[in-house]
Amino acid sequence: MTGWIAIAGMGPGDAALITPEVTAALAQATDVVGYASYVARVAARADLTLHASDNRVELERAAQALELAAAGRRVVVVSSGDPGVFAMAAAVFEALEEGHPDWRELDIRVLPGITAMLAASARAGAPLGHDFCAINLSDNLKPWDLIERRLRLAAEADFAMAFYNPRSKARPEGFGRALDVLREACGGERPVLFARAVCTPEEVLRIVALRDARPEMADMRTMVIVGSSRTRLIERPGAPILYTPRSAE
Amino acid sequence: MTGWIAIAGMGPGDAALITPEVTAALAQATDVVGYASYVARVAARADLTLHASDNRVELERAAQALELAAAGRRVVVVSSGDPGVFAMAAAVFEALEEGHPDWRELDIRVLPGITAMLAASARAGAPLGHDFCAINLSDNLKPWDLIERRLRLAAEADFAMAFYNPRSKARPEGFGRALDVLREACGGERPVLFARAVCTPEEVLRIVALRDARPEMADMRTMVIVGSSRTRLIERPGAPILYTPRSAE
Repeated sequence: MTGWIAIAGMGPGDAALITPEVTAALAQATDVVGYASYVARVAARADLTLHASDNRVELERAAQALELAAAGRRVVVVSSGDPGVFAMAAAVFEALEEGHPDWRELDIRVLPGITAMLAASARAGAPLGHDFCAINLSDNLKPWDLIERRLRLAAEADFAMAFYNPRSKARPEGFGRALDVLREACGGERPVLFARAVCTPEEVLRIVALRDARPEMADMRTMVIVGSSRTRLIERPGAPILYTPRSAE
Repeated sequence: MTGWIAIAGMGPGDAALITPEVTAALAQATDVVGYASYVARVAARADLTLHASDNRVELERAAQALELAAAGRRVVVVSSGDPGVFAMAAAVFEALEEGHPDWRELDIRVLPGITAMLAASARAGAPLGHDFCAINLSDNLKPWDLIERRLRLAAEADFAMAFYNPRSKARPEGFGRALDVLREACGGERPVLFARAVCTPEEVLRIVALRDARPEMADMRTMVIVGSSRTRLIERPGAPILYTPRSAE
């Protein structure tokens, strides 16, 4: 077998945030596999086959990529952000674990990228400058009770919290409940960052107090970061800076 | 004022993991400010002044960078990894908040980078593929009691956990206590990744069960990731793959 798979992070959207490692892998690839809107970010080339698929078919897409590599193709699986954070790397390893035993001999690499919470944090200041957690608010693959339990424990630990997939048309209710749980656990003062389409031409950043946060401020393209008890704003001309000091006290 | 500051993430060590955005900022800079071993990663140039400083002087270094920018210089503050994760961004904002009011008018940008936990995760598989937390184990800036409390709550939330700065010569004891707390909270089976000098020529990866984890397996160049209850290994020729499935059950 001379094929390989690279599961690559394309970052949040801006080409200037794609690592040279990922660019080099794409240049060597024969096939690109991914969700259509991420595949659309790869430049077309005569010797490159683009396999765009729909959302919510991660396991089928992963198996397709493994099959292509097993057939000797050089395959890049594209993810937005970082492939290891709520993205395609875990799906590929699930498919590998359940799939053909020969697949385990494949050359498989994960190429890291700038995940959405780091991009959003950088654009707003440094809200993740002290201990923090990252939670996927989608309840497609876990029970809602577990999400609520994690929110309460994260608040008790006084983590800053980064939320991926806060809200979709299929799940409009959960994020409102999450905000209620957080208000109960943290009070209303906590700053909340809504970073929509971060590092793209449509980027919008908005910072509100937790008491004023509303579910409709987020959609599936929004990264939400809720500060810890120490997170604060530096007012200045233009947008304020949101950051969490390094010290706990 | 025509000066600016860019607080830039240089990634874990490999030049192929530095974003084009950071490379462009360095090309435009007149001054680079940072911890000596990170400044050493910047190519020297006749029109570029390198200001290398010692570890543990983050606030002085931040104030120096702000002063240079206020004097009209184009300043890149270099961090390893991502500047917003246990690195220089929060220090610059602390200095900004306490410093000269005019500094608030400066053009300040944070340029994200590949933080150590994403690089370590990618090299081992996808241990951060489900909900997780990131904790700085240094007790320089927070009481040890708070660290232990966070470890217990993170275990109760069943987060995978990424630990920065697990151990230094000045603090040899803490990491052993952290491992004891985790064994008590999670049992001995949990896989633990020790990723030393990740994405450098000296990289060493080691995965052991929590019961076999020893403090001396880590130093200040080691990223430690402890799996959640769902994290597992895929055995295969060569190194196994460590990953956490997307589903909670």
